[in-house]
Amino acid sequence: MNFSELVKKRQSVRKYSDKPVPKDILERCLEAARLAPSACNSQPWSFIVIDDVKSNNEVARAAFSGIYSSNSFAKSAPVLVAVITEQSKFIAALGGYFRGTQYNLIDVGIAVEHFVLQAAEEGLGTCWLGFFNEKEVKKILNVPKEKKVDIMISVGYPADDKVREKSRRPIDEIRKYAQKG
Amino acid sequence: MNFSELVKKRQSVRKYSDKPVPKDILERCLEAARLAPSACNSQPWSFIVIDDVKSNNEVARAAFSGIYSSNSFAKSAPVLVAVITEQSKFIAALGGYFRGTQYNLIDVGIAVEHFVLQAAEEGLGTCWLGFFNEKEVKKILNVPKEKKVDIMISVGYPADDKVREKSRRPIDEIRKYAQKG
Repeated sequence: MNFSELVKKRQSVRKYSDKPVPKDILERCLEAARLAPSACNSQPWSFIVIDDVKSNNEVARAAFSGIYSSNSFAKSAPVLVAVITEQSKFIAALGGYFRGTQYNLIDVGIAVEHFVLQAAEEGLGTCWLGFFNEKEVKKILNVPKEKKVDIMISVGYPADDKVREKSRRPIDEIRKYAQKG
Repeated sequence: MNFSELVKKRQSVRKYSDKPVPKDILERCLEAARLAPSACNSQPWSFIVIDDVKSNNEVARAAFSGIYSSNSFAKSAPVLVAVITEQSKFIAALGGYFRGTQYNLIDVGIAVEHFVLQAAEEGLGTCWLGFFNEKEVKKILNVPKEKKVDIMISVGYPADDKVREKSRRPIDEIRKYAQKG
């Protein structure tokens, strides 16, 4: 599968089969994330993998209930990953402050996308999750209060393998060529 | 090339050959970016491709001079891309406000990584750039003041094709498994 095929195959999967996710595949997804580029090579990320049934149930219930229940589908995912956004290195943080840009968020975007693309290649389905009860998740996972969990990922084998057509803005709306002649 | 090979091949390229970059390859990189996922499918990105010599020289000089000359290598790239971070859709922006997270930055991270991975597969070299004179770049490219250009990408064929070993934190430092038993 070449990259453009992989990009088309990766999609948000919100319905999972019961098939367990092998640990070696999870490790390959994490390895792809580990190798992601980042501002000044800060690597401002860490991952808590929640794959045992007891923790998974507890975290899922806490994360996706109440006002967060729009993501309650994720309760059925056999694996959840909590992504901690770490601080950038001093020089990247300084540059980011000067530029008015939180580069560590961009970096988390890159690393998590590596994870989900590797997962798609392995036949797994994932969904990016941004809306969940972070406070409760951190409490259960013993993540220090001052740390930020901006993203969670749900992971499992898809209940069906239909690849949907992607709905996106047309290319002419999102790119132009600078022409000075 | 499978995805883990591609991840290893993608690296920051800071020295380019004179070989011009074909437009159809650039378009495939942009297409990979276009298909990237984003919070609530906001697609908060647009791209200005600077590939004609005159604009390229003008933008490069403005972007990577003075205090920004640590990135002056990018002046020799035959193509530059300015990435505009657009606003998220209302619902994603509201969620982001509530969660204290700028999801459009994460989304830009995803889309630009799609671009550079596609480029790597095509044999192109790229470098993510965060430190440049945004004000001057926007002026030359007629980007409205209120818009943000957080990222630029330099693009060209690498001067050599040596793949370097990546220096990253060890896996045990960045992932753990939640274990409740």
